[in-house]
Amino acid sequence: MSRFLAKRYEALEPYTPGEQPRDQQYIKLNTNESPYPPSDGVLAAVRGAEAELLNRYPDPDARALTAALADRYGLAPENVFVSNGSDDILNFCFMALCPDGVRFPEVSYGFYPVYANLHRVAWDTAPVNEGLAFAPGAFCRIGKTAVLANPNAQTGIALARAEIAAIAASNPDHPVIVDEAYVDFGAESAVPLVREYGNVLVVQTFSKSRCLAGARLGFALGSADLIADLRRLQYATNPYNLNRLTQAAGVAALADQAYYDDRAREIQATREETRRGLEALGFTCTPSLANFLLARTPDMAGGELYRRLKARGILVRHFSDEKLEDWVRITIGTPLQMEALLRETAALLGREGAIPCE
Amino acid sequence: MSRFLAKRYEALEPYTPGEQPRDQQYIKLNTNESPYPPSDGVLAAVRGAEAELLNRYPDPDARALTAALADRYGLAPENVFVSNGSDDILNFCFMALCPDGVRFPEVSYGFYPVYANLHRVAWDTAPVNEGLAFAPGAFCRIGKTAVLANPNAQTGIALARAEIAAIAASNPDHPVIVDEAYVDFGAESAVPLVREYGNVLVVQTFSKSRCLAGARLGFALGSADLIADLRRLQYATNPYNLNRLTQAAGVAALADQAYYDDRAREIQATREETRRGLEALGFTCTPSLANFLLARTPDMAGGELYRRLKARGILVRHFSDEKLEDWVRITIGTPLQMEALLRETAALLGREGAIPCE
Repeated sequence: MSRFLAKRYEALEPYTPGEQPRDQQYIKLNTNESPYPPSDGVLAAVRGAEAELLNRYPDPDARALTAALADRYGLAPENVFVSNGSDDILNFCFMALCPDGVRFPEVSYGFYPVYANLHRVAWDTAPVNEGLAFAPGAFCRIGKTAVLANPNAQTGIALARAEIAAIAASNPDHPVIVDEAYVDFGAESAVPLVREYGNVLVVQTFSKSRCLAGARLGFALGSADLIADLRRLQYATNPYNLNRLTQAAGVAALADQAYYDDRAREIQATREETRRGLEALGFTCTPSLANFLLARTPDMAGGELYRRLKARGILVRHFSDEKLEDWVRITIGTPLQMEALLRETAALLGREGAIPCE
Repeated sequence: MSRFLAKRYEALEPYTPGEQPRDQQYIKLNTNESPYPPSDGVLAAVRGAEAELLNRYPDPDARALTAALADRYGLAPENVFVSNGSDDILNFCFMALCPDGVRFPEVSYGFYPVYANLHRVAWDTAPVNEGLAFAPGAFCRIGKTAVLANPNAQTGIALARAEIAAIAASNPDHPVIVDEAYVDFGAESAVPLVREYGNVLVVQTFSKSRCLAGARLGFALGSADLIADLRRLQYATNPYNLNRLTQAAGVAALADQAYYDDRAREIQATREETRRGLEALGFTCTPSLANFLLARTPDMAGGELYRRLKARGILVRHFSDEKLEDWVRITIGTPLQMEALLRETAALLGREGAIPCE
């Protein structure tokens, strides 16, 4: 920290992303990326003529991408905002759309309290039960902004669309922000609620189901008024927020929807195979509808399992928060990667005979 | 604006970037882009194997790019910060490095007051004279942060390194932020001052001399403490701030320095040719060392010249600010583009015979 930094940022706790070690090659199951490459159309788009135009600024309104997203979700372009990853959009939400404070689940995306503290927004949490689920009623009539990851981060547990609708209906004077980073792996999206409820803002990303974490592309869908707020913040901070190649990649990904639907189905099938394998080894998993499983075993503490898997070349994620310390979060990779995970886990626990597929 | 937006942002005035009309093809001399494409190395980098890794998050610390920049400028990696365009970095500077307020020149980058108002930082300006120059002494012993574009935005007028050093020495307890977007076209860079003055932060971009406006890549060079502040803000807002392809493009651009040096020399030569042509038509130009000229003529108001050139297919930029309303800002394009500009301008003014090169 420099002696020039404004006092209000001295105590700022930054977010800690998943580790990216370089000491060896790992089977990387720690940051919820897709194990599959982008579609051929995306590769062609970023390798095409657009590169020769990189001396020219990108379209700050990303009109082609915005129109393609509007088309995909049955909305108008004025209902669509795009930016440099969904974190960028969530930052704007906490910055300017939480004037009366914010509530999010006790166990969720670790960035929410970081944003709230950064922008000095008062926050509290909806408690989770032993199974790490929260009651959707904890978000009804709260008199403040609601931020919900759905499926929830870390647990993968999803609310039904009707539950989100009830939350939106009960908070007509406050935004309900639904972070749908993981929605394409089996949960119900709140996008159809955008037309009905002017306070619902859905935030999505191309990082998970669209295999583009490395391109940085997030988007929000909501009422024209809410989207206008986000655009105003864009134009007051970084108007050219999305580079040319990412815009081109996004348009191409939307045109290749069938490829990504197939990949999402594969990941769901692999998730359920992996769940069965882990349960055969004595693990308990949350009922995740995301591209990861949150799992624990009575036979080994979460932190130890993480360290011992890392020593065997497999990276999973362990969180030190009290509610999560027994658990590890395992991103769903390819079937081969998950077989390796199960094999090494069984070996660690001395349960080599327990995996049916081995 | 939505009814949910926090009150403090209701009066927010966003920045207005240069227009990007789509009604026809223009000779585009309005946003200070390079007229030249990126180097072959950059094209190869963004079209190479990196695209197949787009399903994986980028390195949030951009270690390869940071090391290459450190190497290029004779600094250590801890003296280098990279982000999604230099606007992103300037936003952080106003957000957190102006605890006692900020001063910038009366005529400069129009984003500075937008950032200051966004972050509720008290600001004032150093006045400019009839020739649009400010006295460097107006930044000495000011008891607040100094933000200087050098060469200055809109005018292209540059301070000498010794003048920046005097400003830094006289403000030991406040940051001196030097925005060097245009420094590679003939001005003296303040980068050598970084080692000497812990309060100097130099902000640069790949958008101008490195022909990568469309890739969004800015960087800052400064003391390890100041850079740590910027990294902390990155990790509290958007850790994965720079996509994979832009990181690869940046590394490749630094390896192709000779190509970019040649392009910068060409632009300087074209600038001086254009200046002579405009002067032969009766224009006055500021002594710009940037990749643009700011010019005015007693024969036509700035706004009218802008409109009539646009009608003839040439886009230049006109600013409505009182001090700039007589002027137009003309980006330096290729020699052929500048011949077209001079030819059309001469025709508008009825001075067809006045251009020596015609």
